Amino acid sequence: MKFKVVKLMRILVTNDDGIHAPGILALAKKMSELGMVKIMAPLEEKSAIGHGITIREPICVETINLAGIGQAWGVKGTPADCVKLGLTEILTEGCDLVVSGINNGPNLGTDVLYSGTVSAAMEGAIFGIPAIAVSLAAWNHDDYSVAAEIAFKLIGYLKENRLTIPKRSVLNINVPAVSREEIKGIQVTVLGKRDYNDRFEKRFDPRGNPYYWAVGDILPFRKDDLIYDIFAVEKNYVSLTPLHYDLTNYQLYTEIRDWGLENC
Amino acid sequence: MKFKVVKLMRILVTNDDGIHAPGILALAKKMSELGMVKIMAPLEEKSAIGHGITIREPICVETINLAGIGQAWGVKGTPADCVKLGLTEILTEGCDLVVSGINNGPNLGTDVLYSGTVSAAMEGAIFGIPAIAVSLAAWNHDDYSVAAEIAFKLIGYLKENRLTIPKRSVLNINVPAVSREEIKGIQVTVLGKRDYNDRFEKRFDPRGNPYYWAVGDILPFRKDDLIYDIFAVEKNYVSLTPLHYDLTNYQLYTEIRDWGLENC
Repeated sequence: MKFKVVKLMRILVTNDDGIHAPGILALAKKMSELGMVKIMAPLEEKSAIGHGITIREPICVETINLAGIGQAWGVKGTPADCVKLGLTEILTEGCDLVVSGINNGPNLGTDVLYSGTVSAAMEGAIFGIPAIAVSLAAWNHDDYSVAAEIAFKLIGYLKENRLTIPKRSVLNINVPAVSREEIKGIQVTVLGKRDYNDRFEKRFDPRGNPYYWAVGDILPFRKDDLIYDIFAVEKNYVSLTPLHYDLTNYQLYTEIRDWGLENC
Repeated sequence: MKFKVVKLMRILVTNDDGIHAPGILALAKKMSELGMVKIMAPLEEKSAIGHGITIREPICVETINLAGIGQAWGVKGTPADCVKLGLTEILTEGCDLVVSGINNGPNLGTDVLYSGTVSAAMEGAIFGIPAIAVSLAAWNHDDYSVAAEIAFKLIGYLKENRLTIPKRSVLNINVPAVSREEIKGIQVTVLGKRDYNDRFEKRFDPRGNPYYWAVGDILPFRKDDLIYDIFAVEKNYVSLTPLHYDLTNYQLYTEIRDWGLENC
């Protein structure tokens, strides 16, 4: 008779709001109910850094004691750096899950391209590790407990039902910033297209040189269909969008082959 | 009888190697044979910055005189910042094409996620402007003339044959670093998956704190099929990969809807 060894889940937790942000603390605490958690996150806020990585400079790392967590690693680098370093230098025995967040603010539609939180999860997927990005879909909301609870329940459900996140893929979760009772359920969604009103405010420094502040905003989303992440969250659903990191436009690939470029 | 007004093509040129890099100069000179060129590019090298944007700080801009080009705009920001600023503040009357490059080094496979050059072109696509990223697939090669010539020919061919790059899409061009005669032609490709050997070299600063240098490298690509960008370039073809910025994994979307998450 063989005994089944129940392996403790090894989880890397990171974010882009910085290691001292309340969202990562709430997430890490909840994740530690699921397994062994290691936190490696940027020392400073790195929102909107996209999938940047540090290659021309060294990456300094500080060990930090986080209240209620213990030792964590603060990185003078990007969220993607944290995942690369965490998986190769900290979780050297292997990692079963990368969870990034809980982000202060939504990561919906086209915005996922700019998001350090989502890029960190993508980096996990590039390493072949199941990865989840979790965002609270309102800025500077102080309660991350509902979002943490939902991430916990979702991961537990996947585990229980032996549902695996396929290789090269990421689950992007956005939780509306409402009470548990007001949340209508989970919607599996696709990314909506964000339209921006990109504007800059031009100012002049004391020497007369121009500089610009980005002051654009997001235009209202016009497709009222729960298939879209943006609309689902507006309607108080938890949005779950499966992402991958293959940016190939396959439809266009087929079309372009008829463009006769061999004659160009 | 109506006269057709032949409009001069308005082209925004940017890159991630910085405004003083030889690749952008070669590209801009060749593009000015096609229309009116404005250059707005980072003042410093911004390789591997991905799709980062500057939102928490102001973006300083300097006007610069580039030899053989004239006035250009140097930006203390990211490639995506340059496109946002260029399209809203410089080319205020409209823009017909964003061209990013010529990058010092390949932008193939998974690497396009990290690439500032490709992200700048993506930003053009987000604005609804046809966009092309051009890379020379070898590092520190000194001759950008072949790659510039190919970009020029390709855009001319599209224009002549009224072939439009569809909205939300980018053409990612990688030119092998060989002579014009050795280039076998253009291959329409999809992104290959890069496998990395991510490693870090750990060192200690004079105070005993650890820091890391990324020293990983790219593992050999094993699929010998010209459908893949990486292999096509290895075989001396110009690789043209159509990209888009929709990271949704549609196949997984369909699968996950059967996961019964409504019970979670």
